[in-house]
Amino acid sequence: MKSSHPYSLLQILPYLGKWTLIAGLVALASGTASALFLWALDWATASRTTHYWLIWLLPLAGWVVSWVYLKVGTQVEAGNNLLIDEIHDPRKVVPLRMAPLVLLATVISHLFGASVGREGTAVQMGGSLADQLTHLFRLRQEERRIVLMAGISAGFASVFGTPLAGAIFALEVLAIGRLRYDAIFPCMLSAILADQIGMAWGIHHSHYAAGAIVALGPWSLLAVLLAGLVFGLTAWLFASAVHALTALLKRLIPYAPLRALAGGVVLVLAVAALGQRYTGLGIPVMLEAFAHPLPWWDSAGKLVFTLVSLGSGYKGGEVTPLFFIGATLGNALAPLLNLPFGMLAALGFVAVFAGAANTPLASTVMAIELFGPQIGPYAALACVMAYLCSGHRGIYKAQTVAVHKHRIGPPDGQP
Amino acid sequence: MKSSHPYSLLQILPYLGKWTLIAGLVALASGTASALFLWALDWATASRTTHYWLIWLLPLAGWVVSWVYLKVGTQVEAGNNLLIDEIHDPRKVVPLRMAPLVLLATVISHLFGASVGREGTAVQMGGSLADQLTHLFRLRQEERRIVLMAGISAGFASVFGTPLAGAIFALEVLAIGRLRYDAIFPCMLSAILADQIGMAWGIHHSHYAAGAIVALGPWSLLAVLLAGLVFGLTAWLFASAVHALTALLKRLIPYAPLRALAGGVVLVLAVAALGQRYTGLGIPVMLEAFAHPLPWWDSAGKLVFTLVSLGSGYKGGEVTPLFFIGATLGNALAPLLNLPFGMLAALGFVAVFAGAANTPLASTVMAIELFGPQIGPYAALACVMAYLCSGHRGIYKAQTVAVHKHRIGPPDGQP
Repeated sequence: MKSSHPYSLLQILPYLGKWTLIAGLVALASGTASALFLWALDWATASRTTHYWLIWLLPLAGWVVSWVYLKVGTQVEAGNNLLIDEIHDPRKVVPLRMAPLVLLATVISHLFGASVGREGTAVQMGGSLADQLTHLFRLRQEERRIVLMAGISAGFASVFGTPLAGAIFALEVLAIGRLRYDAIFPCMLSAILADQIGMAWGIHHSHYAAGAIVALGPWSLLAVLLAGLVFGLTAWLFASAVHALTALLKRLIPYAPLRALAGGVVLVLAVAALGQRYTGLGIPVMLEAFAHPLPWWDSAGKLVFTLVSLGSGYKGGEVTPLFFIGATLGNALAPLLNLPFGMLAALGFVAVFAGAANTPLASTVMAIELFGPQIGPYAALACVMAYLCSGHRGIYKAQTVAVHKHRIGPPDGQP
Repeated sequence: MKSSHPYSLLQILPYLGKWTLIAGLVALASGTASALFLWALDWATASRTTHYWLIWLLPLAGWVVSWVYLKVGTQVEAGNNLLIDEIHDPRKVVPLRMAPLVLLATVISHLFGASVGREGTAVQMGGSLADQLTHLFRLRQEERRIVLMAGISAGFASVFGTPLAGAIFALEVLAIGRLRYDAIFPCMLSAILADQIGMAWGIHHSHYAAGAIVALGPWSLLAVLLAGLVFGLTAWLFASAVHALTALLKRLIPYAPLRALAGGVVLVLAVAALGQRYTGLGIPVMLEAFAHPLPWWDSAGKLVFTLVSLGSGYKGGEVTPLFFIGATLGNALAPLLNLPFGMLAALGFVAVFAGAANTPLASTVMAIELFGPQIGPYAALACVMAYLCSGHRGIYKAQTVAVHKHRIGPPDGQP
């Protein structure tokens, strides 16, 4: 057959063999690291819940972690952004130390009650472990991009138990408005395997029950579009505020350990006033958001706790707090929009994340993986709407803008 | 907040209002057209099944349809490829006559027993109806791209009852290896609304029950990768053969009506020898493929009937025959791979299509919409594998190659 790109099966077999092996190794390392991490996170959360006084040590813990990063972690401090930068412009292998540093730092964040997530940790462990294969397989810089993406994919998939969302996340997060397929096979395979390996280590994921999803109709569609707009603005507020607060604190308190100490003190005072509702991952509150009405300020409370935690340098990530903010916000919007709590909590869960990370397809697929296919059309509308309304600067500063979200320009010849 | 792309909510409200209205109109036109088409298709199929002798008139029907296209349809003859070309390089509005011509031609194909599909028809009706809004809204050429994509999305979604797959298909089909998000909102909204409008007209979609999906494990994953490879090679064979046969017949018989007549005669002779198993959409055989073992030659038979039908110019489309070929091939592979019939039929259903249309994400999402989320990881692997192994020239000749499937090059600065 004549074709502008001649094709033969022989060409593809070495590609398939090599990347199946690499994806398997990435999944083994990343799935195992995620399992260890989730186990440690359970331990840290349980310890904090039974030893209330641990929260008083948060400022000190923040100081120590920041000091350690200052001494041995400046190269890996940029975290997720370092990985995204290396994928855009591959230069040198990500230091292996990123994995243990972010693991320990995040477990300490959670043990002492900072309000942070876990996707950053899983993604950074996945990325840095995967990148160590660069030497083993003598990979070219172009191939390193693919390995790093497979690592991100495996980390995300195994920490949340959502393999397809993990793979699409890794493809989608690099740039706003465009998704390339060159890493689709390694990302899919490593995500699915890493999720299996995590579960083989005995990891269980939280189960959120969205409950009844109402039939599609004019009102429910309009209501979900409106909710998506609110979710998008919340995502914009979160991403803008976290960048602004981080910059402000860096200017006010240039010495990182002191910054973490100050942030810790603010958090401790806030906990003294409001209790532990907004510390840590907050999974119990998220479960509540699917079950019964919650006060509207739960999302605001979590937003402020998370801003202070991330802005003052605590490690972990943004995504689980975004799930919390979205689920509680959806819960609060449900009576206003006359839709079930569980359904809107589920939509908020994925859509605030979609807007903040600029990953509408991964978030839609995540909704289907977590809540079932019936929520699909609603999740797609809420996530796309949130994506459109969240501006062009998400939580990942290294993410580039490939295609403007809502200014329609001429086709660039590369549709 | 400072940002390289300044953002304000006011900027986006006119965009949202305009495209919500356009997506609604596209969905109304396309969903209604699909409903009419599916109703006519049911009538045509039922008529053929009760009046066996209609098949003898196929060559004559082919002559008449080709003659009509020659007289009034040369501008719209290119069908799906015309739409894709206009999206890549918008020039002039697609003539409205594309819609009634392809509708009638496809119903005639099915009434007299050609082996063709229906997605081409739905997509062409959706695209040409949508493009008529260009005048009404005084759209710029760049905006026409988006309207055409929304039309494709709405047509695909409403004819198969798979809204998310329809939207992703429209974004994904334009170029191999890259997906742009500039049409994501109009495509999602028009797909979901068109599907609803089709159902409001009383349309029902065939339900295929994949049955038990085995738990993920080393063997099942490896088996599905192998099956994906076979599905991809089948897709490659189909796409290559349809282009080659079309070119050959054009050279041998330059006069289009005579070509259709000759193809019709071959099909009639084949039906006389083998019966009607491979004519029309073939939904009863597809349902069998999910239920019990079928002979391996069912997929080969359908492939040959479809090649002759499409190669000699019968209208309809490739996708439903690809579903048939994939489902029966999956069925035949099931005992060899020691996996359930229904599961492999479901995977073949989507994966041969994924390989031939180069739309692995739309096909994976379609699998979840049709067969439930449990099949997700398997469908993703089978579809991605089929995509990798199907070469760079799919069924749509106007599709461009944006990113090579398995040759890893330097990042192009536009990840």
